[in-house]
Amino acid sequence: MKSYRKEIALHLPSHRGFLNITSTVEQCVRESGVTEGLVLVNSLHVTSSVFVDDDEEGLFRHYEQWLEKVAPVLSAGDYSDEGIGDDIVDSHMKRHVMGREVTVAITNGRLDFGQWEQIIYGEFDGGRPKRVLIKVIGQ
Amino acid sequence: MKSYRKEIALHLPSHRGFLNITSTVEQCVRESGVTEGLVLVNSLHVTSSVFVDDDEEGLFRHYEQWLEKVAPVLSAGDYSDEGIGDDIVDSHMKRHVMGREVTVAITNGRLDFGQWEQIIYGEFDGGRPKRVLIKVIGQ
Amino acid sequence: MKSYRKEIALHLPSHRGFLNITSTVEQCVRESGVTEGLVLVNSLHVTSSVFVDDDEEGLFRHYEQWLEKVAPVLSAGDYSDEGIGDDIVDSHMKRHVMGREVTVAITNGRLDFGQWEQIIYGEFDGGRPKRVLIKVIGQ
Repeated sequence: MKSYRKEIALHLPSHRGFLNITSTVEQCVRESGVTEGLVLVNSLHVTSSVFVDDDEEGLFRHYEQWLEKVAPVLSAGDYSDEGIGDDIVDSHMKRHVMGREVTVAITNGRLDFGQWEQIIYGEFDGGRPKRVLIKVIGQ
Repeated sequence: MKSYRKEIALHLPSHRGFLNITSTVEQCVRESGVTEGLVLVNSLHVTSSVFVDDDEEGLFRHYEQWLEKVAPVLSAGDYSDEGIGDDIVDSHMKRHVMGREVTVAITNGRLDFGQWEQIIYGEFDGGRPKRVLIKVIGQ
Repeated sequence: MKSYRKEIALHLPSHRGFLNITSTVEQCVRESGVTEGLVLVNSLHVTSSVFVDDDEEGLFRHYEQWLEKVAPVLSAGDYSDEGIGDDIVDSHMKRHVMGREVTVAITNGRLDFGQWEQIIYGEFDGGRPKRVLIKVIGQ
């Protein structure tokens, strides 16, 4: 069994945003030498997400509005008295809706994807350095 | 290490629907010869889902209504000017709520499941052929 | 390839609640002897969740309110005529928002986590015994 690990560094300038990281993951799969196996791609942060979707700017703009409806920024009266970082509570919630991680099959040395599948990083508390983990196991 | 891959073809006649695919996945696990490992089951489409739940028609009817509340079909005024497929934006959103994939443990050659766990395919843009990927790795 | 399996027993007294199970998973990873691989941690029930987040009591209180807003307990008029367990339909929905499982990389014999990442069990139909599965594969 082979294994491979890489961290990738990201820094989205905006508080929220989406970024296609598929080509980086493909490069890692090539470097790993694994032809049959699994690759796990996850955010190393609790306020950002890795998910699979079409890479489509217009779709991401719809997500931006939708996620704010489903998991809105807390209004002043909703804050606790504890200083737990209430100003990013919604970032945690948005990340749960979109998910922390994806596991993708590797077949014949490539990501085993359908036509529109791309690996997208979703940032919900940006403007600072973040990291994504890529772990490959297989043969 | 062993690996195994199979695609299964699905075609739900309705725009949205749910289908229990557990027995097909079990058959694949048997064919793989893997007794200890993991099986990844994922949709190869960005508007459908694979998740674990009780196989219960009444539950799925509740989901149908709930998902339309959480991630409604866009109304005319919400469409962008870009022609990005706004008419299925809600299908992408519903799929994120339910998830793209499941990873299930294989123990003693069988799906390592609790009493009510079944693998369900959730369709949010049906009426056409779709595919699900089953990838097994282990020994 | 090595594999390892353990079930852990949980019993949260309340109907809903959150519990940090990271140290138990870490102990399992040590017992497995796997230094490079993956660990899958999933609920064996369809009304509870395993997810990754900061272990923060105040955050969990926010989730409690938020999940009730996104996936509320059904009101009397929303019940079906079928006796499908409508009184816990919302427990299934809340679990889908938070997810069934996490897959975590193992590197150098440890959970390969970012600074705030912890493995949290989320209960949405408690007051009775529940089980979580930990499955490790790797070398």
